[in-house]
Amino acid sequence: MQDWLNGQPLDPGLQRDRGLAYGDGLFETIAVRRGQPRLLDRHLQRLATGCQRLRIPCDLAQLEVEVRAYAALLGEGVAKLLYTRGDGLRGYAPPAEPEVRRLLLASPTPAYPPAHAIEGIALYPCATRLATQPLLAGLKHMNRLEQVLARGEWTSTDYAEGLMLDQDGRPIEGVFSNLFLVCAGRLQTPALDRCGVAGVLRGLLLDLAAQAGIQSEVRPLALDDLLGADEVFLCNSQYGIWPVRRYAAANWSVGPVTRKLQGSINEILE
Amino acid sequence: MQDWLNGQPLDPGLQRDRGLAYGDGLFETIAVRRGQPRLLDRHLQRLATGCQRLRIPCDLAQLEVEVRAYAALLGEGVAKLLYTRGDGLRGYAPPAEPEVRRLLLASPTPAYPPAHAIEGIALYPCATRLATQPLLAGLKHMNRLEQVLARGEWTSTDYAEGLMLDQDGRPIEGVFSNLFLVCAGRLQTPALDRCGVAGVLRGLLLDLAAQAGIQSEVRPLALDDLLGADEVFLCNSQYGIWPVRRYAAANWSVGPVTRKLQGSINEILE
Repeated sequence: MQDWLNGQPLDPGLQRDRGLAYGDGLFETIAVRRGQPRLLDRHLQRLATGCQRLRIPCDLAQLEVEVRAYAALLGEGVAKLLYTRGDGLRGYAPPAEPEVRRLLLASPTPAYPPAHAIEGIALYPCATRLATQPLLAGLKHMNRLEQVLARGEWTSTDYAEGLMLDQDGRPIEGVFSNLFLVCAGRLQTPALDRCGVAGVLRGLLLDLAAQAGIQSEVRPLALDDLLGADEVFLCNSQYGIWPVRRYAAANWSVGPVTRKLQGSINEILE
Repeated sequence: MQDWLNGQPLDPGLQRDRGLAYGDGLFETIAVRRGQPRLLDRHLQRLATGCQRLRIPCDLAQLEVEVRAYAALLGEGVAKLLYTRGDGLRGYAPPAEPEVRRLLLASPTPAYPPAHAIEGIALYPCATRLATQPLLAGLKHMNRLEQVLARGEWTSTDYAEGLMLDQDGRPIEGVFSNLFLVCAGRLQTPALDRCGVAGVLRGLLLDLAAQAGIQSEVRPLALDDLLGADEVFLCNSQYGIWPVRRYAAANWSVGPVTRKLQGSINEILE
């Protein structure tokens, strides 16, 4: 019998994809500038890590060719890559030999206010907390209801991002960003082995810090670490770095380490 | 620019649905017998609860008409209803006025061995644990990577189902079933306010037990409660009740309460 969409017969398509059924897949949101997919190596590397963890086969060479071809046609914007375990209607059991699906969807470069990067932003205190799931932590998988709930908590444009804590109240990340602190000249960012997404720009920043001789630390952080930090910023492969000026009752000015890293990142991203 | 699927241009369809992007939706797997959707009221009620919790608009009357029409055409089998928040490409923020999507997908009645219900089954001890997320607990939402990982842990047909524990090691549910214990004539089933899916048949069983004068208790259970139980069984709206005969080193025979409830359920389901 034929499938129905909104009461009408539907020809075969994506409706039986396990990505839709179970969120059984991964994605990457890749900035495209002058026909080039930005930080492609890091995006593909994260995807490969996710595929390994979820046991989804992955041909990175083919993906690279495809994303580069798509980016060349797109020119300027965002290429979102969805990578799913393919079809399978009933039952959670992953097929032994899945026919994976690769989707590439284009959208315009998001128009974030330039002031976010220059003057900094206020961070909304999300009530939605991240669940502890070591098996999925760090991956950019397609089970993202927590982010949907968290992003639904505020509509005021006073807040450019929201901070998500874990079940123990530790700060983990923004809804679509990673979190960094600067404490006595040292860079600190939460460990993401229990929850959170290991962002591509987070990885680049840790590498850049090492090259620039800035000490950095990846470890579980407490809310007090955040509140007592000298500088706070968020990062994301689309917008780069946003200094955080305000979270709950805490206030920060934009500090020198944040500005230095912004400079380094901007050189690479532009 | 056009979307691509596996390197080829793709016409507009489901590829930008938030159900695919984020698992931003709910589903129901409805048994259809002689053209009738079984336990439809309970399925729709759970969907409505999920929509309310995820703030997805929901027209139950329209859904009921649609599922009944689909079931009448299908006759015999399974109708899977997917209900998503609809399109939206970039950003987690839920649209203020989403255009929801209703999908109905048919498949044959699953061919479980009749021995599962008669003689009982062995339960695989899954290493994959359920994360604690009170905001999503109980719902049949589309973020199901934990179940995919858990079901991928065993391939031997010696195990008809697997048991999932929470992060604290408490038994919660099967990968696609709910769990019941019988202890001194009392029915017990894990509370699902921190993780797990509140199954339609679980709800029916609790109601039936009340009607039959069987005391029942919904509370957090410990592994020792399971190991020390007089009877153990699983339930699911597709197969009804499977007695559990073995889990790890523990063994049970099929007990009288399990058989009594099987009898009551079979009358309703057939």
